[in-house]
Amino acid sequence: MPVQSDLTVDVVDITDPDDPRVDDFRDLNAADRRPDLAVLPGGEAGKGLVIAEGVTVVERMIASRFAPHALLGVRGRVEQLAAALSRPELTGTPFYRVSAEVMAAIVGFHLNRGVLAAAHRPPPLTVPEVLAGARTVVVLEGVNDHENIGSIFRNAAGLGVDALLFGARCSDPLYRRSVRVSMGHALLVPFARCRTWPDDLAEVQQAGFSLVALTPGEGSVPLHDAVGAARTAFLVGAEGPGLSEATMRRCDVRARIPMSRGTDSLNVATAAAIAFYERSRSLEAQSS
Amino acid sequence: MPVQSDLTVDVVDITDPDDPRVDDFRDLNAADRRPDLAVLPGGEAGKGLVIAEGVTVVERMIASRFAPHALLGVRGRVEQLAAALSRPELTGTPFYRVSAEVMAAIVGFHLNRGVLAAAHRPPPLTVPEVLAGARTVVVLEGVNDHENIGSIFRNAAGLGVDALLFGARCSDPLYRRSVRVSMGHALLVPFARCRTWPDDLAEVQQAGFSLVALTPGEGSVPLHDAVGAARTAFLVGAEGPGLSEATMRRCDVRARIPMSRGTDSLNVATAAAIAFYERSRSLEAQSS
Repeated sequence: MPVQSDLTVDVVDITDPDDPRVDDFRDLNAADRRPDLAVLPGGEAGKGLVIAEGVTVVERMIASRFAPHALLGVRGRVEQLAAALSRPELTGTPFYRVSAEVMAAIVGFHLNRGVLAAAHRPPPLTVPEVLAGARTVVVLEGVNDHENIGSIFRNAAGLGVDALLFGARCSDPLYRRSVRVSMGHALLVPFARCRTWPDDLAEVQQAGFSLVALTPGEGSVPLHDAVGAARTAFLVGAEGPGLSEATMRRCDVRARIPMSRGTDSLNVATAAAIAFYERSRSLEAQSS
Repeated sequence: MPVQSDLTVDVVDITDPDDPRVDDFRDLNAADRRPDLAVLPGGEAGKGLVIAEGVTVVERMIASRFAPHALLGVRGRVEQLAAALSRPELTGTPFYRVSAEVMAAIVGFHLNRGVLAAAHRPPPLTVPEVLAGARTVVVLEGVNDHENIGSIFRNAAGLGVDALLFGARCSDPLYRRSVRVSMGHALLVPFARCRTWPDDLAEVQQAGFSLVALTPGEGSVPLHDAVGAARTAFLVGAEGPGLSEATMRRCDVRARIPMSRGTDSLNVATAAAIAFYERSRSLEAQSS
């Protein structure tokens, strides 16, 4: 079946897995050289590419500010992505078309999503940029699990949170697994890294946000009593340690999700989702 | 450091990874023979053991109706688990004590949690047994992802849900990964498998439960309008297909979590957690 004639990408057939043109997709799981590493284990700079995988996430990358400079995929995916691959901003971008076997040889394993896109990182957004116009944001501290970060992006997108801020000791939100678990929303929901933690929180507060620390600890009020401010920033910490005391002291209120006795805290992305839900419920009630 | 003298388990040092006494912990990741498989890929019966890993989950197994018949772990874990390993019901149960290297050779990979316990499956609970005394239950249909099942157990335990029911096309809730992701709550929260799906739902309804289908589809009311019945059963389906229409027709009400436009549905365990939260909020308001 011929490729549709209105594609803007440049479809290039690749049959040799060692072809250097597909180097940006090589060895995706190799801990010492994977292309999404910004810093290699030895301390040298890595490529730090953003990698999207699967039809939905690749579509979202194309719609995002992370413009792909190359794609790699099997024949069938070209047809599935035809609408996205016909967008004018992709004009001349190579789509390297391969067999499933060649794809597996390049990436290092069988990737049954069948399509990848790679983007260079655009300049990061700043805290004021992501706060502008936002009503609800979430601020992460010490969240170093890529799946949790991806889930928080997904939950933010689904439940109306406008932006994410990354405080101290968080992992790279653009790591391949985060992007995948986020269903591509890591590329669409604006985010910024704080530079001087936790002092940056003063900036958030000065922008009019109520800082709500999610914590099961003492002095906390039920969540539904803490979500009604015009601008609200939820602060969440990693499972286990939670938020640091220094960070909680900066907050306007501590809020808890009522939990059964004798259980662990909820997963951080689940706790965040519940906060986002309660917030959207509050905004809905205010507007009706 | 000598083992504490009040342990009830029988500590047995094992130095040969091929020792048949540790066969119940062998090759935990081997798809064709792992001990938690109830049915082997060829169709023969497997051991179908329940495997707990890590200090917290092993403690919960010991406290559950899944009585371990053997444990395997490194020296340090004996001390960490001393209180649990001194319980009278463990009298004479072997604790196979090994080096980290021998443990890796037995299980087939380095298991940094350092301790495992194995239990035979007790007779399953019945639907009437798990409904007795319950105010809130969750019913799963087509949920075949072990992590999602584990997360639903954890969220149920944390947010006051009394029991789980498994409808058609769900995976084994006692698979090792489910138990691990549940933080051991798969062993503590009562659950039963439905036998004649979806007819069993009539039984739940006759027990006085309002059946609430979680669905973003047409004809749904906001979640907070659907959680106030004295007895409430939430029905959740797998991501993607969701609940079957036949199942939704059996329900008393369809409820939705308000979502942003253009996003995917939430992960099933996240959606369930939000429903559990809204339910606990409603029960709290009723009691105050």
